[in-house]
Amino acid sequence: MTTDAASSRPLAHPERAEIRLEGVLHALSDPIRLLIVRQLAGDDAGAGPGLSCSQIELPVTKSTSTHHYRVLRESGVIQQIYRGTAKLNELRRDDLDALFPGLLGSILGAATAQAERPVVLS
Amino acid sequence: MTTDAASSRPLAHPERAEIRLEGVLHALSDPIRLLIVRQLAGDDAGAGPGLSCSQIELPVTKSTSTHHYRVLRESGVIQQIYRGTAKLNELRRDDLDALFPGLLGSILGAATAQAERPVVLS
Repeated sequence: MTTDAASSRPLAHPERAEIRLEGVLHALSDPIRLLIVRQLAGDDAGAGPGLSCSQIELPVTKSTSTHHYRVLRESGVIQQIYRGTAKLNELRRDDLDALFPGLLGSILGAATAQAERPVVLS
Repeated sequence: MTTDAASSRPLAHPERAEIRLEGVLHALSDPIRLLIVRQLAGDDAGAGPGLSCSQIELPVTKSTSTHHYRVLRESGVIQQIYRGTAKLNELRRDDLDALFPGLLGSILGAATAQAERPVVLS
Protein backbone atom coordinates (compact mmCIF):
# COMPACT_ATOMS: atom_id res chain seq x y z
CA MET A 1 0.00 0.00 0.00
CA THR A 2 1.14 3.55 -0.68
CA THR A 3 -0.25 6.75 0.76
CA ASP A 4 -0.53 10.24 -0.58
CA ALA A 5 2.53 11.88 0.95
CA ALA A 6 1.29 15.37 0.10
CA SER A 7 -1.70 14.97 2.38
CA SER A 8 -1.88 14.73 6.14
CA ARG A 9 -4.87 12.43 5.71
CA PRO A 10 -3.47 9.35 4.03
CA LEU A 11 -5.53 7.58 1.39
CA ALA A 12 -4.41 3.99 0.92
CA HIS A 13 -4.07 2.71 -2.62
CA PRO A 14 -2.85 -0.73 -3.67
CA GLU A 15 0.26 -0.78 -5.85
CA ARG A 16 -0.37 -2.02 -9.38
CA ALA A 17 1.04 -5.47 -8.55
CA GLU A 18 -1.28 -5.78 -5.57
CA ILE A 19 -4.47 -5.30 -7.60
CA ARG A 20 -6.47 -8.54 -7.72
CA LEU A 21 -9.01 -9.47 -10.37
CA GLU A 22 -11.48 -10.71 -7.76
CA GLY A 23 -11.32 -7.35 -5.97
CA VAL A 24 -11.84 -5.41 -9.20
CA LEU A 25 -14.83 -7.56 -10.18
CA HIS A 26 -16.29 -7.25 -6.69
CA ALA A 27 -15.86 -3.47 -6.80
CA LEU A 28 -17.67 -3.34 -10.14
CA SER A 29 -20.48 -5.71 -9.11
CA ASP A 30 -22.51 -2.94 -7.51
CA PRO A 31 -24.80 -0.66 -9.55
CA ILE A 32 -23.76 2.52 -7.71
CA ARG A 33 -20.05 1.78 -8.12
CA LEU A 34 -20.62 0.93 -11.77
CA LEU A 35 -22.34 4.29 -12.16
CA ILE A 36 -19.35 6.09 -10.64
CA VAL A 37 -16.93 4.25 -12.92
CA ARG A 38 -18.99 4.98 -16.02
CA GLN A 39 -18.96 8.68 -15.20
CA LEU A 40 -15.22 8.67 -14.56
CA ALA A 41 -14.70 6.83 -17.85
CA GLY A 42 -16.74 9.49 -19.63
CA ASP A 43 -14.53 12.14 -18.06
CA ASP A 44 -11.36 10.47 -19.37
CA ALA A 45 -11.76 12.15 -22.72
CA GLY A 46 -11.28 15.55 -21.12
CA ALA A 47 -7.98 14.35 -19.64
CA GLY A 48 -8.64 16.65 -16.70
CA PRO A 49 -7.53 16.05 -13.14
CA GLY A 50 -10.55 13.83 -12.38
CA LEU A 51 -13.99 14.43 -10.93
CA SER A 52 -14.77 15.36 -7.36
CA CYS A 53 -17.32 13.26 -5.51
CA SER A 54 -19.76 16.17 -5.58
CA GLN A 55 -19.59 16.29 -9.39
CA ILE A 56 -20.96 12.74 -9.59
CA GLU A 57 -24.58 12.67 -8.54
CA LEU A 58 -25.62 9.46 -6.79
CA PRO A 59 -28.98 8.38 -5.36
CA VAL A 60 -27.47 7.46 -1.97
CA THR A 61 -26.47 9.20 1.25
CA LYS A 62 -23.06 10.81 1.67
CA SER A 63 -21.78 8.04 3.95
CA THR A 64 -22.91 5.29 1.55
CA SER A 65 -21.28 7.17 -1.27
CA THR A 66 -18.03 7.47 0.71
CA HIS A 67 -18.12 3.72 1.28
CA HIS A 68 -18.50 3.03 -2.45
CA TYR A 69 -15.58 5.30 -3.35
CA ARG A 70 -13.45 3.56 -0.74
CA VAL A 71 -14.25 0.10 -2.18
CA LEU A 72 -13.28 1.38 -5.63
CA ARG A 73 -10.05 2.88 -4.32
CA GLU A 74 -9.00 -0.07 -2.18
CA SER A 75 -9.59 -2.52 -5.02
CA GLY A 76 -7.38 -0.44 -7.33
CA VAL A 77 -10.12 0.72 -9.69
CA ILE A 78 -9.79 4.42 -8.91
CA GLN A 79 -7.19 6.84 -7.62
CA GLN A 80 -8.35 9.44 -5.09
CA ILE A 81 -6.35 12.53 -4.25
CA TYR A 82 -7.19 15.44 -2.02
CA ARG A 83 -7.52 18.90 -3.50
CA GLY A 84 -8.23 21.04 -0.45
CA THR A 85 -11.27 19.50 1.22
CA ALA A 86 -12.48 17.75 -1.94
CA LYS A 87 -11.39 14.34 -3.19
CA LEU A 88 -10.68 14.06 -6.90
CA ASN A 89 -11.36 10.68 -8.46
CA GLU A 90 -9.77 9.13 -11.52
CA LEU A 91 -9.94 5.69 -13.09
CA ARG A 92 -6.66 3.74 -12.85
CA ARG A 93 -7.03 2.86 -16.49
CA ASP A 94 -3.32 2.42 -17.21
CA ASP A 95 -2.87 0.03 -14.30
CA LEU A 96 -5.99 -1.99 -15.12
CA ASP A 97 -5.19 -2.16 -18.83
CA ALA A 98 -1.64 -3.30 -18.09
CA LEU A 99 -2.78 -6.02 -15.71
CA PHE A 100 -5.95 -7.13 -17.45
CA PRO A 101 -5.97 -6.04 -21.11
CA GLY A 102 -9.46 -5.35 -22.41
CA LEU A 103 -11.21 -5.99 -19.10
CA LEU A 104 -12.22 -2.46 -18.16
CA GLY A 105 -13.34 -1.68 -21.70
CA SER A 106 -15.51 -4.78 -21.91
CA ILE A 107 -17.12 -4.09 -18.52
CA LEU A 108 -17.81 -0.47 -19.47
CA GLY A 109 -19.25 -1.67 -22.78
CA ALA A 110 -21.40 -4.24 -20.97
CA ALA A 111 -22.65 -1.59 -18.55
CA THR A 112 -23.64 0.65 -21.44
CA ALA A 113 -25.33 -2.25 -23.25
CA GLN A 114 -27.28 -3.08 -20.12
CA ALA A 115 -28.29 0.53 -19.49
CA GLU A 116 -29.72 0.65 -23.01
CA ARG A 117 -31.78 -2.53 -22.89
CA PRO A 118 -35.26 -2.69 -21.41
CA VAL A 119 -35.57 -3.89 -17.82
CA VAL A 120 -37.20 -7.32 -17.52
CA LEU A 121 -39.29 -7.89 -14.40
CA SER A 122 -39.36 -11.54 -13.40
CA MET B 1 -36.93 -17.83 -14.06
CA THR B 2 -37.32 -21.19 -15.81
CA THR B 3 -36.94 -24.62 -14.29
CA ASP B 4 -35.73 -27.89 -15.71
CA ALA B 5 -39.03 -29.58 -16.59
CA ALA B 6 -37.38 -32.95 -17.09
CA SER B 7 -36.37 -33.12 -13.44
CA SER B 8 -38.50 -33.47 -10.34
CA ARG B 9 -35.95 -31.29 -8.56
CA PRO B 10 -36.22 -27.95 -10.25
CA LEU B 11 -33.07 -25.91 -10.85
CA ALA B 12 -33.85 -22.25 -11.34
CA HIS B 13 -32.04 -20.42 -14.13
CA PRO B 14 -32.55 -16.80 -15.15
CA GLU B 15 -33.70 -16.25 -18.72
CA ARG B 16 -31.14 -14.52 -20.91
CA ALA B 17 -32.94 -11.18 -20.59
CA GLU B 18 -32.92 -11.45 -16.81
CA ILE B 19 -29.14 -11.78 -16.53
CA ARG B 20 -27.64 -8.67 -14.91
CA LEU B 21 -24.08 -7.47 -15.31
CA GLU B 22 -23.76 -6.78 -11.57
CA GLY B 23 -24.79 -10.38 -10.81
CA VAL B 24 -22.32 -11.81 -13.31
CA LEU B 25 -19.46 -9.70 -11.93
CA HIS B 26 -20.38 -10.63 -8.37
CA ALA B 27 -20.47 -14.32 -9.30
CA LEU B 28 -17.00 -14.01 -10.83
CA SER B 29 -15.52 -11.98 -7.95
CA ASP B 30 -14.73 -15.09 -5.91
CA PRO B 31 -11.55 -17.14 -6.47
CA ILE B 32 -13.34 -20.50 -6.16
CA ARG B 33 -16.06 -19.51 -8.60
CA LEU B 34 -13.45 -18.14 -10.98
CA LEU B 35 -11.67 -21.49 -10.76
CA ILE B 36 -14.88 -23.34 -11.67
CA VAL B 37 -15.52 -21.05 -14.61
CA ARG B 38 -11.97 -21.40 -15.90
CA GLN B 39 -12.29 -25.16 -15.85
CA LEU B 40 -15.65 -25.06 -17.62
CA ALA B 41 -14.17 -22.71 -20.22
CA GLY B 42 -11.34 -25.18 -20.79
CA ASP B 43 -13.91 -27.92 -21.30
CA ASP B 44 -15.73 -25.90 -23.99
CA ALA B 45 -13.28 -27.05 -26.60
CA GLY B 46 -14.45 -30.63 -26.16
CA ALA B 47 -18.04 -29.48 -26.81
CA GLY B 48 -19.19 -32.25 -24.50
CA PRO B 49 -22.26 -32.16 -22.29
CA GLY B 50 -20.44 -30.25 -19.54
CA LEU B 51 -18.55 -31.23 -16.41
CA SER B 52 -20.03 -32.75 -13.29
CA CYS B 53 -19.24 -31.09 -9.97
CA SER B 54 -17.10 -34.09 -9.00
CA GLN B 55 -14.93 -33.61 -12.11
CA ILE B 56 -13.91 -30.16 -10.88
CA GLU B 57 -11.64 -30.43 -7.87
CA LEU B 58 -12.05 -27.60 -5.39
CA PRO B 59 -10.30 -26.90 -2.07
CA VAL B 60 -13.61 -26.44 -0.20
CA THR B 61 -16.26 -28.60 1.45
CA LYS B 62 -19.13 -30.08 -0.53
CA SER B 63 -21.67 -27.63 0.90
CA THR B 64 -19.47 -24.62 0.14
CA SER B 65 -18.95 -25.93 -3.36
CA THR B 66 -22.73 -26.37 -3.82
CA HIS B 67 -23.19 -22.77 -2.74
CA HIS B 68 -20.68 -21.53 -5.31
CA TYR B 69 -22.34 -23.48 -8.13
CA ARG B 70 -25.70 -22.04 -7.11
CA VAL B 71 -24.37 -18.46 -7.22
CA LEU B 72 -22.98 -19.12 -10.70
CA ARG B 73 -26.28 -20.65 -11.85
CA GLU B 74 -28.55 -18.01 -10.35
CA SER B 75 -26.49 -15.18 -11.84
CA GLY B 76 -26.73 -16.76 -15.30
CA VAL B 77 -23.07 -17.69 -15.68
CA ILE B 78 -23.62 -21.45 -15.84
CA GLN B 79 -26.35 -23.91 -16.77
CA GLN B 80 -26.82 -26.91 -14.48
CA ILE B 81 -28.76 -30.00 -15.50
CA TYR B 82 -29.30 -33.25 -13.69
CA ARG B 83 -27.94 -36.45 -15.16
CA GLY B 84 -29.12 -39.07 -12.68
CA THR B 85 -27.81 -37.93 -9.31
CA ALA B 86 -25.02 -35.80 -10.80
CA LYS B 87 -25.29 -32.20 -11.92
CA LEU B 88 -23.63 -31.31 -15.20
CA ASN B 89 -22.31 -27.77 -15.50
CA GLU B 90 -21.80 -25.70 -18.61
CA LEU B 91 -20.90 -22.08 -19.21
CA ARG B 92 -23.74 -20.00 -20.70
CA ARG B 93 -21.29 -18.59 -23.19
CA ASP B 94 -23.83 -17.85 -25.92
CA ASP B 95 -26.08 -15.92 -23.55
CA LEU B 96 -23.21 -13.97 -22.00
CA ASP B 97 -21.60 -13.20 -25.36
CA ALA B 98 -24.93 -12.00 -26.75
CA LEU B 99 -25.61 -9.73 -23.78
CA PHE B 100 -22.08 -8.54 -23.05
CA PRO B 101 -19.80 -9.04 -26.07
CA GLY B 102 -16.21 -9.73 -25.08
CA LEU B 103 -16.86 -9.69 -21.33
CA LEU B 104 -16.44 -13.37 -20.53
CA GLY B 105 -13.36 -13.65 -22.74
CA SER B 106 -11.67 -10.68 -21.11
CA ILE B 107 -12.40 -11.97 -17.60
CA LEU B 108 -11.08 -15.43 -18.47
CA GLY B 109 -8.01 -13.80 -20.01
CA ALA B 110 -7.52 -11.66 -16.91
CA ALA B 111 -7.85 -14.72 -14.66
CA THR B 112 -5.20 -16.53 -16.68
CA ALA B 113 -2.91 -13.49 -16.62
CA GLN B 114 -3.30 -13.24 -12.86
CA ALA B 115 -2.69 -16.95 -12.31
CA GLU B 116 0.58 -16.60 -14.20
CA ARG B 117 1.97 -13.57 -12.39
CA PRO B 118 3.82 -13.81 -9.11
CA VAL B 119 1.87 -13.18 -5.93
CA VAL B 120 2.82 -9.94 -4.18
CA LEU B 121 2.57 -9.95 -0.41
CA SER B 122 1.83 -6.52 1.00
